[in-house]
Amino acid sequence: MQHAVFSGGARIRPQLCLAVSMACGDNAPELTDAAGVALELMHCASLVHDDMPAFDDADVRRGRPTVHKAFGEPLALLTGDALIVMAYQVLTNACTAYPHRLAPLFQNMSRGVGLPGGIVAGQAWECETSADLALYQRAKTGALFVAATCAGALACGSDPEPWAALGANLGEAYQVADDIRDVILSTSSLGKPSGQDELHHRPSVASDLGLNGAIHHFQRLINQAAESVPACTCKDMLQQLVRLEAERLIPAASYEACLRQSPKPSLVAHS
Amino acid sequence: MQHAVFSGGARIRPQLCLAVSMACGDNAPELTDAAGVALELMHCASLVHDDMPAFDDADVRRGRPTVHKAFGEPLALLTGDALIVMAYQVLTNACTAYPHRLAPLFQNMSRGVGLPGGIVAGQAWECETSADLALYQRAKTGALFVAATCAGALACGSDPEPWAALGANLGEAYQVADDIRDVILSTSSLGKPSGQDELHHRPSVASDLGLNGAIHHFQRLINQAAESVPACTCKDMLQQLVRLEAERLIPAASYEACLRQSPKPSLVAHS
Repeated sequence: MQHAVFSGGARIRPQLCLAVSMACGDNAPELTDAAGVALELMHCASLVHDDMPAFDDADVRRGRPTVHKAFGEPLALLTGDALIVMAYQVLTNACTAYPHRLAPLFQNMSRGVGLPGGIVAGQAWECETSADLALYQRAKTGALFVAATCAGALACGSDPEPWAALGANLGEAYQVADDIRDVILSTSSLGKPSGQDELHHRPSVASDLGLNGAIHHFQRLINQAAESVPACTCKDMLQQLVRLEAERLIPAASYEACLRQSPKPSLVAHS
Repeated sequence: MQHAVFSGGARIRPQLCLAVSMACGDNAPELTDAAGVALELMHCASLVHDDMPAFDDADVRRGRPTVHKAFGEPLALLTGDALIVMAYQVLTNACTAYPHRLAPLFQNMSRGVGLPGGIVAGQAWECETSADLALYQRAKTGALFVAATCAGALACGSDPEPWAALGANLGEAYQVADDIRDVILSTSSLGKPSGQDELHHRPSVASDLGLNGAIHHFQRLINQAAESVPACTCKDMLQQLVRLEAERLIPAASYEACLRQSPKPSLVAHS
């Protein structure tokens, strides 16, 4: 579990949760922290199971051996299970002083992970012969981003609804970025094998829209994410977080070079 | 998920939860029901993952193909994950009218499933070259039985502590029975392959104590379970439940025949 969690992830979901909570007054910081931790544990659990031979069969994650490579398949399977349970435990333990916030936070997190529209549902689409790309990405990645922004509001006892769009747009941008990175970055700079979407015939925006189209789509989503930040005292900070995250995901320099080199991206042929 | 859950299980954990709740006044029946359902979903999740090739590699469960045999490994992995999440969802949704009971019920269930002493921990012991049999069985089976009796009390807002021993004794008896059944019953009457403990070199009371010793140990545990029922209006009903469950697990006729046939059980040689 330690190997799976402390591996230098970007912690974007907890960051989102904390930022939204700050915008909502952050009146229960220990609850905000727990919500952020719980979301990250869920994310790590999904990575451990997703890397296993039944799915991506990946040897490397964030530049290190994946959990099943380091500790074997049985312990990798159990690691994912235990991280899911621990996510609920962390949240439960932090909620003793706020019993009325526990159920909404739990419902919110479970929606991001379980059926019918969370990570598990998204991963299940990979087992079908064809899948609606938007539906797949919304479930596999978007749902936990929505859960992250909404958790920030719920931890403060605030209405989560105004924050859902920020999570949804950023989540979609994140998935599109992942597809683009899978094509343009090398294995060493990705920290995991590149070219996996094509290899596993996974739905991918980069193969659907071509690299050019995918990059423009990514830029549009980042703009939408920034615009969807509701009026609040932290609006500037949140918009800056969105822009910084965009640059971290796909440095402008890398895709500008890429766009110059390939006016007709080779991947279009596979779409 | 349907295949994993609706397969004719004995539902002993929900039965225990309901029986204890009745003894405690059952003042929130919808919460008791949800707690029982959640525990059974957790149990089913553990069976799905335990049957997978990384663990038992079992083709058959309760007389039907296991989930990975029927739907493939990727969906079996996700089915287990989704059932864990659903267990928390069911409990969350039932708790809206009782916000102060949610956290104790969640902590109780998580303790039965997660680290350091729940199902996941028990299953992890199987990955070690040697394991303390009592510790292994307490985690793999006992913990969820303890969670089941305690959940019945917690759903009523009662103190769970007096009910822990009933769960612990019955859980241990259940695991011993499982070891015995693995030896004396045929694959068809088990509804799953027999002889698995020996095949997978798993810790087993039947190989540690011999069949004779294991059966006496089972009888002792059943007596202890019946005696550990605290004074309450439902004491007779609960003791009868324990006896009926013992007979369902290992019909007296089957082990009496077995004891007559093998005064020196063949398994002692392997212990």
